[in-house]
Amino acid sequence: MHTLHVNLGDRSYPIYIGAGLLDQPELFARHIGGRQVAIVTNETVAPLYLSRLTEALQGFELATVVLPDGEAFKNWETLQLIFDGLLGARHERGTTVVALGGGVVGDMAGFAAACYQRGVDFIQVPTTLLSQVDSSVGGKTGINHPLGKNMVGAFYQPKAVVIDTASLATLPPRELSAGLAEVIKYGLICDEPFLAWLEEHMDALRGLDQQALSEAIERSCAAKARVVGVDERESGLRAILNLGHTFGHAIEAHQGYGVWLHGEAVAAGTVMALEMSRRLGWISAEERDRGVRLLRRAGLPVVPPQDMTAEDFLGHMAVDKKVQGGRLRLVLLRRMGDAVVTADFPREILDATLAADYQGLAEQL
Amino acid sequence: MHTLHVNLGDRSYPIYIGAGLLDQPELFARHIGGRQVAIVTNETVAPLYLSRLTEALQGFELATVVLPDGEAFKNWETLQLIFDGLLGARHERGTTVVALGGGVVGDMAGFAAACYQRGVDFIQVPTTLLSQVDSSVGGKTGINHPLGKNMVGAFYQPKAVVIDTASLATLPPRELSAGLAEVIKYGLICDEPFLAWLEEHMDALRGLDQQALSEAIERSCAAKARVVGVDERESGLRAILNLGHTFGHAIEAHQGYGVWLHGEAVAAGTVMALEMSRRLGWISAEERDRGVRLLRRAGLPVVPPQDMTAEDFLGHMAVDKKVQGGRLRLVLLRRMGDAVVTADFPREILDATLAADYQGLAEQL
Repeated sequence: MHTLHVNLGDRSYPIYIGAGLLDQPELFARHIGGRQVAIVTNETVAPLYLSRLTEALQGFELATVVLPDGEAFKNWETLQLIFDGLLGARHERGTTVVALGGGVVGDMAGFAAACYQRGVDFIQVPTTLLSQVDSSVGGKTGINHPLGKNMVGAFYQPKAVVIDTASLATLPPRELSAGLAEVIKYGLICDEPFLAWLEEHMDALRGLDQQALSEAIERSCAAKARVVGVDERESGLRAILNLGHTFGHAIEAHQGYGVWLHGEAVAAGTVMALEMSRRLGWISAEERDRGVRLLRRAGLPVVPPQDMTAEDFLGHMAVDKKVQGGRLRLVLLRRMGDAVVTADFPREILDATLAADYQGLAEQL
Repeated sequence: MHTLHVNLGDRSYPIYIGAGLLDQPELFARHIGGRQVAIVTNETVAPLYLSRLTEALQGFELATVVLPDGEAFKNWETLQLIFDGLLGARHERGTTVVALGGGVVGDMAGFAAACYQRGVDFIQVPTTLLSQVDSSVGGKTGINHPLGKNMVGAFYQPKAVVIDTASLATLPPRELSAGLAEVIKYGLICDEPFLAWLEEHMDALRGLDQQALSEAIERSCAAKARVVGVDERESGLRAILNLGHTFGHAIEAHQGYGVWLHGEAVAAGTVMALEMSRRLGWISAEERDRGVRLLRRAGLPVVPPQDMTAEDFLGHMAVDKKVQGGRLRLVLLRRMGDAVVTADFPREILDATLAADYQGLAEQL
């Protein structure tokens, strides 16, 4: 088992990473202060892992809330189901909420924990690669609003994150690849040596080698923890975690949410950020191609949707949360392993990036 | 103008108290960081004060959300109206929410500010005596759930509280009295000399003397700020602020919310807490009578509903948020001006307190 510490003063917490951690009751018990525990999960994950987690938590007064599965349910109506479950079982301020599932379950259970009786304890048990390397670190919780994603939420840190890498065995391969998009991102934005490690271990990762998965998850979480430790509330540096996300969100919004997975849209968006960084003269064509090749080996799309025009991108990007005082800011690479957030680029470079031939770029690799 | 500072480290903020502060734009401007401001108010307060506040905030990009009035609307559906208003006007993370109204408006606007884009700035402009001396200090925000009051919320501190004592001129006298119940409470729990001041100035307060009101509000807020400064998240001391509230909540719940005002129920509940403290031998009959007399002079009920039995009280008190590990804790007076939270009392004393003749007690004063 690897243990990583996220340092946030009195809100610091450990991340445990390893195969089979779901069967280690003492890992949970050491972070539970009261006698009541509420497990929040969804219809897809419950049949796979709920009984094992229940076993690990025997001895506590348990309540279980099973949510419908999917981003479409990440709203207030579904959040109410958690409050209903907690109040129906008379859970007090001393209760601990345990989130068992992917990013949507973690975001909703975390937000419910932040709000229930103005805040109760919370443990994350992420079961998808994406939630293990991204949403379970950093304390962002929340729900969607009809007018915008993640518009209502809280910064709320868990007491612990328990990552059982064996749970990835039941993850659809397409979702594993989507998680790898975020893993590769950490190499690109702040850990250049990690890119070489990923090139060496990509086949092992896709083959679910537990040792390789543990190491990739640990390095990803460590990278995110470093960034979040410097800038918990996203006033500056933290925004570099959104490499490829502004282009990616435009793709998701244009195609309709759920058509492309988030990680898939981020992968194509990352290719666009690489291309724009090259056009600015910050990285070479060879470095760009190295990034594109790695994304492709992870099983990810590296060409934006063919039917999306430059105008489509610009329309969606104008409403991005990173717009400040009306100016569009983008995460770009100064060098491989070194990202910046900047609004300081010539408009022609952005236009050329949106109009570039990504199909041709992919074919020549 | 009086200025009071609530000391909570990097979440410290000032409370400004005085007549006519609504007309001082610079008081607001110094606490607004961005160009956008969203005023949240209700149908009752808007016709009285919205145009003056709008005037004070001219120059900012303003959005206004007018909520329906009343505790019955302190729920998620109404909270959504605030998010709808903010998103509809494209308010960004740099916006400031200004709550103009009583406790319900402040609780909801504060919770919306805590959650909108995971937290935006927030200024309280309380217009009722109760919200000026109680809910605007301490950072408790939230909404009700069908299964419990204030069950969903956040601890979230404002950037500033602006109390215009002149706004009390439009407050119904019954609500002014209800606010005085909380004012008297501060004297009883932690400021014995304030009781003598209140005895001297009660007629001036009920006659809306601006100088007396300013001083009473300042001393009340200072008392609350001291308690909250020691225990922001109610792990201990802060619970003494609930003197009379456990008995009072039982009265509110039994009569049906809204039949007795919160402050009225707290007044009768405070009489019961005084009586129980006397039965424990902690205060004298004369001291109890001093408290009861002051509450009565404030225009408050000092006799619990005649139809409520001891069983009625016990049934409602069992679900109080102050129940810990199944034991009922009560706020009682060790001495006048010195409250404690305790579960350590003989059951017979509680039973005798619930069965006491409060009508007789009131008549002999």
